[in-house]
Amino acid sequence: MDRPFISFLTDFGPDSAPAVCRGVMWSIAPNARINDISHSIRKYAIRDGAFLLWSALPWMPAGIAVGVVDPGVGTARRPIGLLTGRGDILIGPDNGLLVPAASALGGLVEARTLENREWMLAKISSTFHGRDIFSPMAAHLAIGGDFANVGPVVGKETLVGMEFPAATVADGALDTSIIFIASFGNLHLTATGDDMASAFGAVEPGTRFRVELVATPGHPGHVEEVTWVRTFGDSMPMTPVLYEDSSGRLGYADNQADAARRLGATVDQQVRIRRA
Amino acid sequence: MDRPFISFLTDFGPDSAPAVCRGVMWSIAPNARINDISHSIRKYAIRDGAFLLWSALPWMPAGIAVGVVDPGVGTARRPIGLLTGRGDILIGPDNGLLVPAASALGGLVEARTLENREWMLAKISSTFHGRDIFSPMAAHLAIGGDFANVGPVVGKETLVGMEFPAATVADGALDTSIIFIASFGNLHLTATGDDMASAFGAVEPGTRFRVELVATPGHPGHVEEVTWVRTFGDSMPMTPVLYEDSSGRLGYADNQADAARRLGATVDQQVRIRRA
Amino acid sequence: MDRPFISFLTDFGPDSAPAVCRGVMWSIAPNARINDISHSIRKYAIRDGAFLLWSALPWMPAGIAVGVVDPGVGTARRPIGLLTGRGDILIGPDNGLLVPAASALGGLVEARTLENREWMLAKISSTFHGRDIFSPMAAHLAIGGDFANVGPVVGKETLVGMEFPAATVADGALDTSIIFIASFGNLHLTATGDDMASAFGAVEPGTRFRVELVATPGHPGHVEEVTWVRTFGDSMPMTPVLYEDSSGRLGYADNQADAARRLGATVDQQVRIRRA
Repeated sequence: MDRPFISFLTDFGPDSAPAVCRGVMWSIAPNARINDISHSIRKYAIRDGAFLLWSALPWMPAGIAVGVVDPGVGTARRPIGLLTGRGDILIGPDNGLLVPAASALGGLVEARTLENREWMLAKISSTFHGRDIFSPMAAHLAIGGDFANVGPVVGKETLVGMEFPAATVADGALDTSIIFIASFGNLHLTATGDDMASAFGAVEPGTRFRVELVATPGHPGHVEEVTWVRTFGDSMPMTPVLYEDSSGRLGYADNQADAARRLGATVDQQVRIRRA
Repeated sequence: MDRPFISFLTDFGPDSAPAVCRGVMWSIAPNARINDISHSIRKYAIRDGAFLLWSALPWMPAGIAVGVVDPGVGTARRPIGLLTGRGDILIGPDNGLLVPAASALGGLVEARTLENREWMLAKISSTFHGRDIFSPMAAHLAIGGDFANVGPVVGKETLVGMEFPAATVADGALDTSIIFIASFGNLHLTATGDDMASAFGAVEPGTRFRVELVATPGHPGHVEEVTWVRTFGDSMPMTPVLYEDSSGRLGYADNQADAARRLGATVDQQVRIRRA
Repeated sequence: MDRPFISFLTDFGPDSAPAVCRGVMWSIAPNARINDISHSIRKYAIRDGAFLLWSALPWMPAGIAVGVVDPGVGTARRPIGLLTGRGDILIGPDNGLLVPAASALGGLVEARTLENREWMLAKISSTFHGRDIFSPMAAHLAIGGDFANVGPVVGKETLVGMEFPAATVADGALDTSIIFIASFGNLHLTATGDDMASAFGAVEPGTRFRVELVATPGHPGHVEEVTWVRTFGDSMPMTPVLYEDSSGRLGYADNQADAARRLGATVDQQVRIRRA
């Protein structure tokens, strides 16, 4: 605990709110390393935040993580802490944001509500629990505070859940959906490399697939042939590719271009993959 | 001073300028913790920067703060340091940027111009005093340099001032204006919770108000009924609310939506609040 | 090496990829200071990244720098490390990104390919070498690993090069081009202050020049008179100025406004400067 590690993700955007939280953390844990995962989560998009915490935290040193995408701030939704199998403690609102990350970090060991007023700021606002509750709670844990002191245990079954939509295989097609659109415009799908193998067996680089983006209100449908590649550069620039991304899920992208913009795609849009 | 604390706010944007300044600071103060408050201040918007410094710095450990929103860089405007009642030293241009923060940190104790060439870089450009003057000066102070060494005392009355527009109560209305628009699209008003009480007495959550956004060139007027709430989630999504924000000022926002965009609002636009 | 220094630049944008890399670095080098130069490089714009590394790194403490603008990730392009005259080690793809910075840091002393699997993550993806190769390699060097251990020496002449276009003087005109457009909208030109002196002799502030932005497909041409100034504030707001920027190159900017937007300018557009 000499140099405690705190990861930090919010939808607070480019204003000063993340810095205020870091200031509170450093006031309590002066030697903490704070790793800002992102503060550019789409506003109120709990699942986007959950997806990035799930994909990012396994690459970090074990430590404390604070996640705040919290449309219910100040209402009855509970503030919680989740102890993981790897030894991390995840701090944030009980709205599903932290659940996939706990699974990715060795599983959820114990959940507690955050009730210890001595580990919160003296005055608690109704609109900024990131500053007043989550940051000081995280910092007290970071300097070695006992998890049991945050508040009482709550049943895991009482937590608000968060499932990533499963892919299905039927009639020779892999049916999946877009779970996240990255800043490069790459579409990240819920299907994994294993799902791809289940649907089509071992797939050689260069194999062609017919990929249908299913129309949904406000977002047009599209069908095109796409090549399965190991990496973007195995195709021509501006060419669509299908690949296993760096988290083990499928990616649908344009080499050196923005596929999301070209296709007018949106999160949760259905994607059907068949052999061409 | 084992791990000195430096806060840092500019309008430099996403290029490398903030990193260059941090590099200069870390060259002099290798153990400094640097807390980037924001580098996304609207270009040249001194008052936006002053507002964020005012609202953010009280939540930080006492230390050094560097603020650079500086349309007059390289001209006769003075570089200054302000010692606060809490013991912070604020470094930046004499254009009002640092003044409200000094008030929020226990008041201005002493002001000095930055003239010590030994605490600047050897070569001083005309366009990047953040790198050449403010950062090295801050770092020398951070490692324990004496404030008296930055340069001579200047009279407080000679400093360029910065007032946030006051709210007024008349004829049963609270007249105020927008002081800052946050990335969520929430409108932060100059009026405080106390101003609200002066105008309307104790206000129960759920009370309805008639809020007029006064038309100004390029920005339409708008009148609507708005509910006074403790927090966003006490209203329906997409509903406008009025509340006391986490800095003690009034907020006028849409729950889970962007009120500034819906209303076409702009900074300094007048807002009149009456009981509905 | 008590507090090693790692600079970090990518085109990864606002998602979690930079944080994942920092997490990998901190897992190996827990005491490292990491200075994020920028993660907002235009996607795939290798020369933009090379320009910012060139301009930023000389202001940092000597250390390790990781640069990742890497359209060829996962293909045959080599991962390299460059030892500089100042003692820095630059880590990234062999695509020209690191070359100008090496020149600015005392010159390239030795180049090696990164082949030491023990200094990479156990599993190497095809699309995220920033995480799997460059970050762990940098962190092992940061904690004192020997540069000779990264992999074999490669001939400097085999490296992919990167030249900034040179300015030329002919017929009383200085011909140059836009090398970078900063977030303020300032146009940074390849010509230096010395080029300006070669073309026009000693130039007094206030001297007027005729600046032609040469039309190129999609970007209109423009001719206007512009004043040579020491700094922006020496002109009226909204007025175009020509000046020596803080890196010693020429800047063409509007005082307190966005010249790039006004002019519809783009990187590599030609600029011709004559006396008015």
